[in-house]
Amino acid sequence: GVRNLAMDKVAETVLFPCKYANSGCSLRFLHNEKRKHEETCEFRPYACPCPGTTCRWQGSLDEVLDHLLNAHKTITTLNGEDIVFLATDINLPGAVDWVMMQCCFEHHFMLVLEKQERHEGHQQFFAVVQIIGTEKQAEQFRYKLELVDSRHGRKLAWEAKPRSIHDGISQVISGNDCLIFEPSMAQHFGENGNLAINVTIGRVCY
Amino acid sequence: GVRNLAMDKVAETVLFPCKYANSGCSLRFLHNEKRKHEETCEFRPYACPCPGTTCRWQGSLDEVLDHLLNAHKTITTLNGEDIVFLATDINLPGAVDWVMMQCCFEHHFMLVLEKQERHEGHQQFFAVVQIIGTEKQAEQFRYKLELVDSRHGRKLAWEAKPRSIHDGISQVISGNDCLIFEPSMAQHFGENGNLAINVTIGRVCY
Ligand SMILES: [Zn+2]
Ligand SMILES: [Zn+2]
Ligand SMILES: [Zn+2]
Ligand SMILES: [Zn+2]
Repeated sequence: GVRNLAMDKVAETVLFPCKYANSGCSLRFLHNEKRKHEETCEFRPYACPCPGTTCRWQGSLDEVLDHLLNAHKTITTLNGEDIVFLATDINLPGAVDWVMMQCCFEHHFMLVLEKQERHEGHQQFFAVVQIIGTEKQAEQFRYKLELVDSRHGRKLAWEAKPRSIHDGISQVISGNDCLIFEPSMAQHFGENGNLAINVTIGRVCY
Repeated sequence: GVRNLAMDKVAETVLFPCKYANSGCSLRFLHNEKRKHEETCEFRPYACPCPGTTCRWQGSLDEVLDHLLNAHKTITTLNGEDIVFLATDINLPGAVDWVMMQCCFEHHFMLVLEKQERHEGHQQFFAVVQIIGTEKQAEQFRYKLELVDSRHGRKLAWEAKPRSIHDGISQVISGNDCLIFEPSMAQHFGENGNLAINVTIGRVCY
């Protein structure tokens, strides 16, 4: 009707505030652009970064580490720039996640290895380092993941900027911004069903 | 019948020479073990190592290089331990092969990039360095393949012993003894539909 048309006209020209205005976002959007922004707004809450859990926790960045240490006590933390992320029982069937934390440069990083069937009937492993921090903080770092098969002189390595935990792990995987390898490749590099991933985190020097 | 049974008994105990005895193999086998040996006998002929062609050439190792230079003139050769293998038009649909030769340490190496659908509905890239030489000669070397996306600070690297061209490329791929990556990963590292692979070959120091 005429009234809807009039309302549409209003919606086309009025600017609405982002729904995270109370958290600090000062941006305003046309109605049809508002939702798209809110999905990636830097003031949106942080979801629990534990992959494969059904944890529904959300909160501010300051609260994430406390949440992890209290609600997910089984996650191991190692200190240092250069550590070994040991994933055990990599031959377990189905979709499986391995998680640990690495603490260095006064930041905590989440190391995630995920086995899933992104292509039907074809499982793959995906490994990534995420910073418990903002995307801006992530910019200051680089990480390296390395699989070594010293018996055959083989090595597979991936270097990249850490992702912020603000992006979910599924976004990292769908964007291929991670080390990807086949289960049969994991066999080359694994031993007794366990896979050791060397993780090195460094600060970027500009 | 009785006669067949008698023949079977003979076959079970008589040793037959390898069919490459004239080429230098001095081994002898029970009938049922002979074929298996011949498939990997070091004296078997070398097949043309060009992937994706229908070339049926076979010959001795000494003749392979001449064959390649005469019958496959389009293959580029670069000299040096450290070269760039530029694969053009990586977005071409279907199964595609890219080949070039690298000459260093007084040996010729074949660089092969193959795009194929090993898992149904899921194309992947496979890259490997093969030596135009024996498996024993391959033992003296290591190679590194590196994809670099300097814009995002990303790097993917694979190190391994070169394979001998005596093994076919399909054996290399089915054994996962190569760098494997997704088409979407090729997009990260490619530019204008071309993909540059840094190839470094080194001699092993024991
Ligand atoms: Zn916002
Ligand atoms: Zn949680
Ligand atoms: Zn033989
Ligand atoms: Zn040929």
